[in-house]
Amino acid sequence: MSERLFINQLSEQTQVDDVYRAADKQLRANRQGNKYILLKLADRTGTLTGMFWNAEDRDFERCQDSEYLHVKGRTQIYNGNMQMIVTGISPVDPSQVDPADFDMFDASASEQAFARLKELLGSVRNIHLRQLLDACLADEEFMTRFKQSPAAVTNHHAFPGGLLRHTVDLIELAQLIGPRYPQLDIDLLTTGAFLHDIGKTEELSSGGELTYTDRGQLVGHIVIGVQYLADRIAVVEAETKSPFPVQLKWHLEHLILSHHGLLEYGSPKVPLTREAIALHHLDNLDAKLAAATSIIDSDISGDKNWTNYNPSMGKKLWKSPID
Amino acid sequence: MSERLFINQLSEQTQVDDVYRAADKQLRANRQGNKYILLKLADRTGTLTGMFWNAEDRDFERCQDSEYLHVKGRTQIYNGNMQMIVTGISPVDPSQVDPADFDMFDASASEQAFARLKELLGSVRNIHLRQLLDACLADEEFMTRFKQSPAAVTNHHAFPGGLLRHTVDLIELAQLIGPRYPQLDIDLLTTGAFLHDIGKTEELSSGGELTYTDRGQLVGHIVIGVQYLADRIAVVEAETKSPFPVQLKWHLEHLILSHHGLLEYGSPKVPLTREAIALHHLDNLDAKLAAATSIIDSDISGDKNWTNYNPSMGKKLWKSPID
Amino acid sequence: MSERLFINQLSEQTQVDDVYRAADKQLRANRQGNKYILLKLADRTGTLTGMFWNAEDRDFERCQDSEYLHVKGRTQIYNGNMQMIVTGISPVDPSQVDPADFDMFDASASEQAFARLKELLGSVRNIHLRQLLDACLADEEFMTRFKQSPAAVTNHHAFPGGLLRHTVDLIELAQLIGPRYPQLDIDLLTTGAFLHDIGKTEELSSGGELTYTDRGQLVGHIVIGVQYLADRIAVVEAETKSPFPVQLKWHLEHLILSHHGLLEYGSPKVPLTREAIALHHLDNLDAKLAAATSIIDSDISGDKNWTNYNPSMGKKLWKSPID
Amino acid sequence: MSERLFINQLSEQTQVDDVYRAADKQLRANRQGNKYILLKLADRTGTLTGMFWNAEDRDFERCQDSEYLHVKGRTQIYNGNMQMIVTGISPVDPSQVDPADFDMFDASASEQAFARLKELLGSVRNIHLRQLLDACLADEEFMTRFKQSPAAVTNHHAFPGGLLRHTVDLIELAQLIGPRYPQLDIDLLTTGAFLHDIGKTEELSSGGELTYTDRGQLVGHIVIGVQYLADRIAVVEAETKSPFPVQLKWHLEHLILSHHGLLEYGSPKVPLTREAIALHHLDNLDAKLAAATSIIDSDISGDKNWTNYNPSMGKKLWKSPID
Amino acid sequence: MSERLFINQLSEQTQVDDVYRAADKQLRANRQGNKYILLKLADRTGTLTGMFWNAEDRDFERCQDSEYLHVKGRTQIYNGNMQMIVTGISPVDPSQVDPADFDMFDASASEQAFARLKELLGSVRNIHLRQLLDACLADEEFMTRFKQSPAAVTNHHAFPGGLLRHTVDLIELAQLIGPRYPQLDIDLLTTGAFLHDIGKTEELSSGGELTYTDRGQLVGHIVIGVQYLADRIAVVEAETKSPFPVQLKWHLEHLILSHHGLLEYGSPKVPLTREAIALHHLDNLDAKLAAATSIIDSDISGDKNWTNYNPSMGKKLWKSPID
Amino acid sequence: MSERLFINQLSEQTQVDDVYRAADKQLRANRQGNKYILLKLADRTGTLTGMFWNAEDRDFERCQDSEYLHVKGRTQIYNGNMQMIVTGISPVDPSQVDPADFDMFDASASEQAFARLKELLGSVRNIHLRQLLDACLADEEFMTRFKQSPAAVTNHHAFPGGLLRHTVDLIELAQLIGPRYPQLDIDLLTTGAFLHDIGKTEELSSGGELTYTDRGQLVGHIVIGVQYLADRIAVVEAETKSPFPVQLKWHLEHLILSHHGLLEYGSPKVPLTREAIALHHLDNLDAKLAAATSIIDSDISGDKNWTNYNPSMGKKLWKSPID
Repeated sequence: MSERLFINQLSEQTQVDDVYRAADKQLRANRQGNKYILLKLADRTGTLTGMFWNAEDRDFERCQDSEYLHVKGRTQIYNGNMQMIVTGISPVDPSQVDPADFDMFDASASEQAFARLKELLGSVRNIHLRQLLDACLADEEFMTRFKQSPAAVTNHHAFPGGLLRHTVDLIELAQLIGPRYPQLDIDLLTTGAFLHDIGKTEELSSGGELTYTDRGQLVGHIVIGVQYLADRIAVVEAETKSPFPVQLKWHLEHLILSHHGLLEYGSPKVPLTREAIALHHLDNLDAKLAAATSIIDSDISGDKNWTNYNPSMGKKLWKSPID
Repeated sequence: MSERLFINQLSEQTQVDDVYRAADKQLRANRQGNKYILLKLADRTGTLTGMFWNAEDRDFERCQDSEYLHVKGRTQIYNGNMQMIVTGISPVDPSQVDPADFDMFDASASEQAFARLKELLGSVRNIHLRQLLDACLADEEFMTRFKQSPAAVTNHHAFPGGLLRHTVDLIELAQLIGPRYPQLDIDLLTTGAFLHDIGKTEELSSGGELTYTDRGQLVGHIVIGVQYLADRIAVVEAETKSPFPVQLKWHLEHLILSHHGLLEYGSPKVPLTREAIALHHLDNLDAKLAAATSIIDSDISGDKNWTNYNPSMGKKLWKSPID
Repeated sequence: MSERLFINQLSEQTQVDDVYRAADKQLRANRQGNKYILLKLADRTGTLTGMFWNAEDRDFERCQDSEYLHVKGRTQIYNGNMQMIVTGISPVDPSQVDPADFDMFDASASEQAFARLKELLGSVRNIHLRQLLDACLADEEFMTRFKQSPAAVTNHHAFPGGLLRHTVDLIELAQLIGPRYPQLDIDLLTTGAFLHDIGKTEELSSGGELTYTDRGQLVGHIVIGVQYLADRIAVVEAETKSPFPVQLKWHLEHLILSHHGLLEYGSPKVPLTREAIALHHLDNLDAKLAAATSIIDSDISGDKNWTNYNPSMGKKLWKSPID
Repeated sequence: MSERLFINQLSEQTQVDDVYRAADKQLRANRQGNKYILLKLADRTGTLTGMFWNAEDRDFERCQDSEYLHVKGRTQIYNGNMQMIVTGISPVDPSQVDPADFDMFDASASEQAFARLKELLGSVRNIHLRQLLDACLADEEFMTRFKQSPAAVTNHHAFPGGLLRHTVDLIELAQLIGPRYPQLDIDLLTTGAFLHDIGKTEELSSGGELTYTDRGQLVGHIVIGVQYLADRIAVVEAETKSPFPVQLKWHLEHLILSHHGLLEYGSPKVPLTREAIALHHLDNLDAKLAAATSIIDSDISGDKNWTNYNPSMGKKLWKSPID
Repeated sequence: MSERLFINQLSEQTQVDDVYRAADKQLRANRQGNKYILLKLADRTGTLTGMFWNAEDRDFERCQDSEYLHVKGRTQIYNGNMQMIVTGISPVDPSQVDPADFDMFDASASEQAFARLKELLGSVRNIHLRQLLDACLADEEFMTRFKQSPAAVTNHHAFPGGLLRHTVDLIELAQLIGPRYPQLDIDLLTTGAFLHDIGKTEELSSGGELTYTDRGQLVGHIVIGVQYLADRIAVVEAETKSPFPVQLKWHLEHLILSHHGLLEYGSPKVPLTREAIALHHLDNLDAKLAAATSIIDSDISGDKNWTNYNPSMGKKLWKSPID
Repeated sequence: MSERLFINQLSEQTQVDDVYRAADKQLRANRQGNKYILLKLADRTGTLTGMFWNAEDRDFERCQDSEYLHVKGRTQIYNGNMQMIVTGISPVDPSQVDPADFDMFDASASEQAFARLKELLGSVRNIHLRQLLDACLADEEFMTRFKQSPAAVTNHHAFPGGLLRHTVDLIELAQLIGPRYPQLDIDLLTTGAFLHDIGKTEELSSGGELTYTDRGQLVGHIVIGVQYLADRIAVVEAETKSPFPVQLKWHLEHLILSHHGLLEYGSPKVPLTREAIALHHLDNLDAKLAAATSIIDSDISGDKNWTNYNPSMGKKLWKSPID
C-alpha cells in the first residue's frame, strides 16, 4: 500500500486503481431518473469527488457499510475542478489499510503544534490567567477534541487540526506584535487568542465530512466559547477556593464575544478594549492570509496570473510571484 | 407633603417651591467660565432637568450629599422640552419626606405584575421547563432585582419595573397568539418570553440614573441571559439529580440569542425555529407599540397632529385620534 | 376517480398511472439538442414537476390543448425535490374528471373564511368605516376575485384563497391583540388589516401558474390597494351624499402604503401612526410564521432536525419538536 | 419704499432699518430662562433669521398679528450664516407696503414659465396624452396652486414657483435629449416629466414657511401624483365617452411611481421602462445641478475655493471657476 | 461568401452550413466524462455559443489553430438563449474569407465617429484644454486602440468601438445640456467627457473575447485614465515650455476619478464640482439607456411585454411600445 | 522660558500667565452679537482652545499679526474638554521665544525615525525596489516634507511627524510578521508599506492647523501616492537607462490603491494579492491600535473605566488595566 498515488499527486486524465476512504456515499437519480453513486473520496492529502454513472442499486448496497473502497476510474477536469469518473468500486477490509494513509488529521504535526501551544502559553505570568490556562490544558478530553478540530468548514484552516494550527499562529502573532504596543497586556492577549475560537471544538463536527453540529447552528462558537470559559473558571475557583477576578472574567468574555469585529459578522459586541481591538485585527490578518494562500495553492485554473473566481472572497486572486 | 405638585402635573411657567429627589447633581462651567448646577430632579411621576445659573461653589457644597432638595424655581420650555430654571436649593432631611412620593419604582404595581407573571408561568406543563421556571422564581435575590429593573435606558419601558412589565406583556401576547398557530410549542414560547431579556437585570443599573453596567457594556444582556439560564439549569440538575435535556437547553439558549432578529441588531444567531421567529416578532410588536405610546403620551410639541421628531425612531409620529 | 393517489400522498419511487391537471406544458431542447416535455402537474393537494425525456413533437402536439392528462411515470427525488419521470401522456376529456379533485382553490373553505371575514368586519362600529366595508363587500365581482387570490407567488399563503386566509388571520390577530393596547383604534386596525393586501387581487394572476400581472409589475399591490380604496370611498360618498372624512381617508391610505415597514421593502412611507406600526408588525408575524410552517411542513430533506436551505429565508430551519 | 435694501443686498455688519415680512415669529426662552423673539424675516429676494434678545412679552404681543414689521438691527455672521441682531420691532399696516417687494413668488416669472410649459406640452401628438394634458391645464384651481408650489422644503428649487421651474427645465431636457435615443417615446417622456412631481402641489404648503402638509406626510407626493392622474383620466373619459388605454395609464403611473429610482428613496417601484429610466436620470441631473448651484451661489464661507460643509449633500463643494 | 446567413439573422431551428470565426474553442469533459467542444462562434453581427457533443480529440486537434471554421449544425433555444448544436467542423484558410464579414469592429463607423469626435472637441476654446486635446489626438498609436476599444465587457457598449461610441454620445449630451446651466464650463465638461473612460483602452482587451487585462484588474481604468492624462500634460508642457495650470490639472483628474459618483462604485472621490456632478449624471444616463436598449433589442423571451430577467440590471424590462 | 507650564501639564482651574503659539485666531460674534476671540493655542506638547469673551476689535487687531501671544486666563472643563477662559492677550516678539518649546514637530525624534526608516529599507534586496527606494530617499525636498507630515487630521498619528512614525511602525510590523508567511514577498511588502500613505505628504497641510489641501480634496492621497511612484520610477529608468519591470510597477500601484481594503473606504481596487491583503490588515491594526491608545491616553472623562464616547470610533473605550 506504500506505493499508492495520493490524491494530491493526481493530475488530469490519470488512470486510478487504488484504495480510498469514502467520506461520503450517496445513491442518487439524475433528472432523467437514471441512478448514479456520488462519492467523496479521501486520503490524508485531500478529497476528490467521484461520479459512478449508471450505477446499480447493488453496487451501492455492496459498499454501503465500508469505510474503505477499492476504486477504479479516471480523473477529469469538470468546471475547473478535478473529479473522478468511477467505473468500479469494491469494499476493502479496514484491516488491510494503513490508517496513516487516510487520516487528514496529521497526529504528529498536531502533537508538535500542541507542544508549541503549551510553550507559548507558558509565558503567561498573571496568576489568574495562569490558573485558567492550566485548567484548560488539564481538560484532557476537551483538549483531544481541540487538537482534531478544524477552524472552519470552508475557507481558512478547513481541515482536522486546523483550529490548533490557527490558534498557535495567532498566539505567535500576538507575542511578536504585542511588545511593540506597550499598552497591550500580552498575557491577556495571549489568553484571548487561545480562547477566541475554542467554541469551534463543539460547533464543528470533524468526523468524515466537515459540518455544523446542532449546537453549533443554534448557539454558535462564540457563545459556546464563553460557556467553556465559565466552566473552566468554575474549576479554577473550586481548586483555589477563591473567586476569579470578575472584571478579568468579563474582559475574557469580551475578547471572545467581540473577535469578529462587527455585529453583522456575528459578534454581539464590538471590540471596546485595546486587547480586543488587537485580537480582532490579528485574527483577521491570519485568517485572510491563510485563506488566500490556500486558494492560490489549490488553484487549478489555466490562467498563469489569476486564480479562478472565489465565491467566498468575492474575487479572483493574483498568483504571480515577483521576479 | 401630600399636597405636592408632581412632576407630571407641571406645565409651562409654573412657579415651583417643593421637594424633589436629586437623581443627579453636577457643578459645571459654561463656555464663558461661569458656574451653574445641573440637576436631574425626580419624583415618582417622572424626571425634570433643572438649571441653577450663576451658582456658587457653596450652593453646591451645601447640597452635595443630600438625596432630597427643596427647590425654588419656574418651569420653561426649551428646545421643545420642559426644564426648570432653579433659583434656590436647600437640603432636606430624608426623614421629612414620604419615600412613596419619590420612588419611580411602583412597588405595589410590581408585586401585582409579579403575581400575574407567576400565574402565567403556572400554565407551563412541560416538566423540565416547569422545574427551570421554579428554580428561577425561587432565586429570591435575583427576582428582587428583576422586579426593579428597567427594560431599557431610553425608548420603551425605560423605568424601574419596566422589564417586568414588558415581560408580562410579552407572555400574555404569546399565550393569546400562540394557540392560533398549532405548530408552536406554547410552553417553550412562554419560557423564552420570560427569559429573553432577563440579562437586563445585570446589564442596566437602576439606582438613580439609568445606565449600563460594566458587565452590560462588555458582555451584554443577551449573553448574560444565557449565563443566567446555565446557572438555573445547574440548580435544576442538582435538585433533580438528572440531566436537563440538552436539545431543550440549546433551544432556550437559541430563543434568547436570536430574539433581536438580525445579526446587525446584536443577535449572534438569527431565529431558526418557529418559536424563535414568533418570539422575535412579538417582542418587536410590544416594544415598538410601547415606545410609540410613550412618545405620543409625553409629547409637548405645539402641533396638534404631530409629535416632535424622535431621534431613536427617526421620525415624527401622528398623534391624531380618529373622530 | 375517487380512488386516485393525490400529489401530497406520493412518496419516492411511486409508480404513477393517473389523471392530473397540466398547469403548464413546454416542449424544450436540452443542451445536446434532444427534446423533452416539461410538465407542471397539479391536483388540489399540490403541484409536481414532470419530465418526459426524449419526447417527440407529436407527443406534445397531441396534448397541447388538453387541460387534463393521463400520466404514466415514476417519482424520484432530484436535488432534494420530488419530481416525476414521465413515460407517457395522453389527453383526457374534461367531462371525465371531477373538477373538485383538481382545484387548488378550496371553494368551501373559502366560503367559510369569507363568512368569518364578514363576522369579524361586523364588529366595526365607526360609521364611516362601516359604510366603507359595506361598499367593499357589496362589490361582488371584486369579492369573487378576492376570495380566489393567492397572497404571494412563493413563500407564505402562495395558493388560490391564500389572500383571504391571510386577511382573516390578520384581522383575528388584530382583534386579539388590539384590546391590550388601549390607545389603538380597533376599528381602524381591523379595516386596515382588511385592506392592506387587497391590491394583490390585481397584482397576481391566479389562473394556472401564479404570476404577476402587467399592472402588478408596473404599479404594485400597495398602490393598487390605495386605488381600490379611492374607488370604494367614491361609492360611499355617492350613496351617502356626504364627503368621507378626509383625515380618515389619509389614515387608511397610510395603513396600506406603510405596511411593509421600510422604504427598502417597497413601502413609500414608513409607519407613522400607532395603528400603522401595529399593522406592520402583526402582518410580519403572521407572514413569517406561515412561511416557516409551510417550509417545515413541505420539507423533504433527509436530515431529521434541519430543513434544506431555503433561499428566500436565507437559512435552514430547525424542525425538531420539543420532547 | 422703493429704496429698500433687499435681503440679498445685505452684507456683514449692515445697519438695518426697514420693513420685512415676518414669515415666522416665536417668543422663546433660552436655557437661562431669558426671553427672546426668533423671527424669520423675508422679502422677495430671500429670508433671514432675526434674534431679538431680552425681548419683553409686550414686544411680542404688540407684533403678534402683524404680517409686516418695521425692524431695526444689525447683520452678523454666526456659525457661517448671516443673521440679524434685532434691537426693535414695530407693526406695519399692510396697506403701507408694496406687496411686490415681499412676495418670493415671482408671479410674472411664473406666468412666463407657465406659457413655456404650455408651449412645450403643445408638442405632444399622441391623442390620449394630448387629451390628458388638456384636462390638466383646464383645471384652473389646481394649476394656480401648481404655479406657486415649491419643489422642495430645502435643497433644490425650494421657493414658491420652484416646482414649475423644475418641471419646465425637466421637460426641456427631455425634449433636447430624447431625440438622441430613437427608442424613447418623447410624448410619453414629456407627459411623465410634467406629472412626476405634481403631487408636491399637495404635499408641500407654500404659505409662509415651507412645510409638509398632513396629507404630504401620510401619503407623499408620489402617490398623490398618481391620485391626481386618476382624477384627470376620469375627466378625459367623461369628456370623450371612451376609456383611456389601460396600458398607457399604467405606464404613466409607473413613470410617477418609479422616478426616485430606488425603493430606498421612496419609489415603490424601480424604473422598468426606457422612459422611466430616462426620466429618473434626467430628474436627478437637474435636481443635483440646481442644488449645487444654489449651494455655491449662496455660500458665505471665507474660503475662496470651497463652500461650507453642506449636510444634505454630505460634502463641501468646489467653487473655483476655471481660469 | 456574400450570401452567408449572419448570426443576427439566425432563428430557432435553423440549419447552418457556413463559415464563422472561432473566438474561443475548448475541449471539455462533461460530468460523465464524455468529451465535447465548446465553441464561441462570431461574425460581425454577433456571437453564438456552439456545442459539439461527443467530439473526438482529433476533431479538436484538427481545428485547434484555425481562426475560421466551416461549421455544420442547427440552432436551438436553451434556457432562453440561442445556441448551436454543432455536428461537424473543419478548418478554413483565412485567405478564403472576407475579413469584413467577421470583424465586429466596424472600421468605417469608427472612422465616422472619430471624425465626429474631432469636430466636437474642436469647439473647445480654453487654450490649455485645446493643447491637451491636440496632444491626445496626436498620439496616433493610442488613438488607434481607443477607436477599437469596447466600453465594457458586458452591459452597455460591449463591442469593439463601443468606447468611442459612448464617448461621442456623452460629449454630445454635454454640449446639448451644458448651455442650459450657465454655471457649467462646457470646455471642461467636454474635455472631462472625452477623458472619463479613456483608461478602458488599457483596462480591457479587445482581441477575441472581451476580457480584463492584468493592469486593468490591478489598477483599473479610473487610475489608468489619470496616468494617461499626466502623460499628455507632460507632452503639452514640453511643447509649450510652460507649466500646465495646476488647478486645471487637478480638476481634470477629479472629473476622471469621481465619474462613478460614489466610493462604493469604485470612484476614490465623490463629485465635488458642478462639472463633475454633471459628468457623472450624464454618463449614468447614457450608460443606463444604452444598456436597457441593448437588453430589449436582443431579448428572445416569448413574453410580448417583458424581457427575461437581466441579472446585471436585477430586473425584467418592459418592452411594450406605446400605441 | 524654561520654567513654562506646558499644555499637557495644565489641569482644571489652573491660573495661566504664559506664552503660546497662536495656531489660529478668529474674531467672532456670538448669537447675541457680542464679539469674542477664538484662539487655538499651541506648544510642542499639544493644543488648547482659548475663548476671550467680550473682546474688543482692538484686542484682536493688536495681536492679529503675531505668531506668539502672552496669554492670561484660567483653564476650565467644558463639555468634557479642557479650554481656557482668556482674560488678556498681548503680542510677543518671536526673538523672545525658544522655538523648541512651540514646535509640535519633534525634529530630533523625526531624524531618529528617519534613520530607522533607512535602516529598515536597507534590508530590501530586489534590485528594482532597491533602486526605487534610493530614488525616493534621494528626493531631499520631498523627504523633508515627508518627515513633517501628519498621518491624519484627526484620529491616529494626527501630528507633524505622524506619517513617518506610522510608516516606520508599519514596516516594522511587516518585517516581524512577514517571515511567518513564507509566500509573502517581504521586499515588496516593505516597499508597499513605505509607499502606502506617501500621498498624504501632499494631501494634508501641516503648517498651523492640520487641514486638507485643494489637491488632497480633489485627488486624494491614494492617487497622489501612485503619481509620486510614477515620478520616482521615471527617475530610476532615466538613471538605469532600462525600463522598470511593468508587472512590478502594477503590483506597487495596486498595493497603494487597495490599502483601504474596501471600495467604500476609498480604495478604487480591493486587495487582490497576498502582499496587498497583508498590507491592508497590518495598516488597519496599527492605525486602530494607535487611535485607541491616543483616545484612552487623552481621555478626561470622570469615569474610571470608560472614556467619553468617541464619534469617529462610534463607541466608548474601556480604559481599565488588568490587575
